[in-house]
Amino acid sequence: MKDIKINSSKEYNVYVNSGSPDIYPFLDIHKIKSIFIITDKNILKFYSKFINSINDKIVGSYVIEPGEKSKSDNTILNIYYELMKSEVNRKTTIIAIGGGVVGDTAGFIASTFMRGIGIVHVPTTLIAQCDSSIGGKNGFNLGNLKNIVGTFYQPRFVYTNVNFLKTLSEREYINGLAEVIKYGYVLNRNLFNYIEENKRGIKEREIDKLLHIVSECVKIKGTVVEKDEFDVGVRNILNFGHTIGHGIESSSNFNISHGEGVSIGMNIESAISNKMGYLSQEDYNRLINILQFFKLPISMENADTNKILEYIKKDKKKTTNDIKFVLPDRLGHAIITTEVKQDTVTKILKEKLR
Amino acid sequence: MKDIKINSSKEYNVYVNSGSPDIYPFLDIHKIKSIFIITDKNILKFYSKFINSINDKIVGSYVIEPGEKSKSDNTILNIYYELMKSEVNRKTTIIAIGGGVVGDTAGFIASTFMRGIGIVHVPTTLIAQCDSSIGGKNGFNLGNLKNIVGTFYQPRFVYTNVNFLKTLSEREYINGLAEVIKYGYVLNRNLFNYIEENKRGIKEREIDKLLHIVSECVKIKGTVVEKDEFDVGVRNILNFGHTIGHGIESSSNFNISHGEGVSIGMNIESAISNKMGYLSQEDYNRLINILQFFKLPISMENADTNKILEYIKKDKKKTTNDIKFVLPDRLGHAIITTEVKQDTVTKILKEKLR
Repeated sequence: MKDIKINSSKEYNVYVNSGSPDIYPFLDIHKIKSIFIITDKNILKFYSKFINSINDKIVGSYVIEPGEKSKSDNTILNIYYELMKSEVNRKTTIIAIGGGVVGDTAGFIASTFMRGIGIVHVPTTLIAQCDSSIGGKNGFNLGNLKNIVGTFYQPRFVYTNVNFLKTLSEREYINGLAEVIKYGYVLNRNLFNYIEENKRGIKEREIDKLLHIVSECVKIKGTVVEKDEFDVGVRNILNFGHTIGHGIESSSNFNISHGEGVSIGMNIESAISNKMGYLSQEDYNRLINILQFFKLPISMENADTNKILEYIKKDKKKTTNDIKFVLPDRLGHAIITTEVKQDTVTKILKEKLR
Repeated sequence: MKDIKINSSKEYNVYVNSGSPDIYPFLDIHKIKSIFIITDKNILKFYSKFINSINDKIVGSYVIEPGEKSKSDNTILNIYYELMKSEVNRKTTIIAIGGGVVGDTAGFIASTFMRGIGIVHVPTTLIAQCDSSIGGKNGFNLGNLKNIVGTFYQPRFVYTNVNFLKTLSEREYINGLAEVIKYGYVLNRNLFNYIEENKRGIKEREIDKLLHIVSECVKIKGTVVEKDEFDVGVRNILNFGHTIGHGIESSSNFNISHGEGVSIGMNIESAISNKMGYLSQEDYNRLINILQFFKLPISMENADTNKILEYIKKDKKKTTNDIKFVLPDRLGHAIITTEVKQDTVTKILKEKLR
């Protein structure tokens, strides 16, 4: 077990485990006696034993439908009412067991119910373990705006177990790897080298490899979050691949998954960086090679360049007037810039997406 | 103008003005260029000049129906959608002009839209100026639970102008005074003495008297909030009169206003303190005399003691198992205790409410 401390406005521990899943000792350490479970239907299938083991502390639960559509005002309101019906008080802690959708929804609930009650994240997907369970961001969607409502709210602790990753489908697992590669490529060259050297073991989900990549990602994310908890500066680096990626995801009506969008996005954004003279051809090639090894997409069929650009511009409206790009300039490093010309973006999109 | 600094997790200024209302210079000081107004219908009648003066910065607005019923999930959702339609971005600041309902609603919106945008409070009632605009608490009601959803979220600044208090009805103004008396009675004897000595001028709403009591209350509330931003200790003192007061308000189906409930509640809770030997008869009498001078109620007709007790117990469920009482033990001071026997409460309720 690796115990990683995150020092944001509130300090908390991320326990990354590789043994048989058991959260009970950690609930005891943190003196948590009353819990309310939020999870989704798919999780229930695999995790009944895990949940039963903490049955004596449970005062209520809410099971959401899997999928992004559940991140809605409707789900949020239903959970509030369920909490009001249960024997929940200010000392109750919410346990969020699942991927990003469960974590984002439960995080928002915990941060606002009774002006804030405790939450423990139990991330079960690779993206959630490496990324979304760390840093306190939560939210839900309204209309077609993703995460338009949310808060920053740190958990009491995070319980991660890499054995959970064995329950993922191949597609889910590989999609998560896109984010892991992202961490290495723009933030930590050692991690990137490790992925290259251990790609077969990672693909096979060998436990020691999983433990290494998850705990490294947690540490990297932790460092970024400690420097910029409220996402006004360096935390933007984590958006590498996402500016283009979101546009691709949206323009495909979400037929392209988040991880796939990020993978294609990383290719495009790195190519832009290469074109602008920041990134060497050699470093660019290393990214492409590792993405291809894991069969992550670097291109897509029937791409509508104009539509993608439209979505990117729509995204930008939410912040300021300039489109921010995260451009890798050497392995394990990137710059944030608003100086990318639209012509360059269009040109690279047309060149790479065919 | 008095400029009072509040040092909570985020430092901010409360500007207490007594001249002609003008917020423009303060928006400039804080470099606020884009604003979204949240207010209510009653306010619009009196404040059109005030709002027009900042017209060039307004990107949108939402006008809620006056009254507690507006603190609903429905209002919150409608405001989110209105924000999404407007040219609002992360740098937009919400200006909340009104009493507690507007402040609580707008505060929640600001703390959750886009994971938090700026808010400026412009409190227009005495309670809002002295109490609810300071300290960052916000929230809305679900079912019959008041403020069951909310956050702690500090504003960029608070613009208060005591001239606003001239627009209040006699009842609204006097209700607000109940909270001012509360501050003096359990937290600051100088303020209580001042109220006694200047009661006629205060009743007449003389500007210098208003400026004094509002700025003293802001300072007192500020000190309490600085010590206990998240309401887990000393901030409980502000609940003096409220444990019983809420019960009375609820059991009357809100025919008794909040200020009236608090006034009766202060009488009952002080009588309990007197009965238990904490509070002298002389100090108890001084409270009763000042409440009666302002024609604030100290009793009620057709009180249903059992119903009041039921509501008090229901309130407690939300926190822990003990009913907390704030008992004044000398002028300007109080203790917090869970040691009050239910028999004592019943006895005093029966004795005083007839």
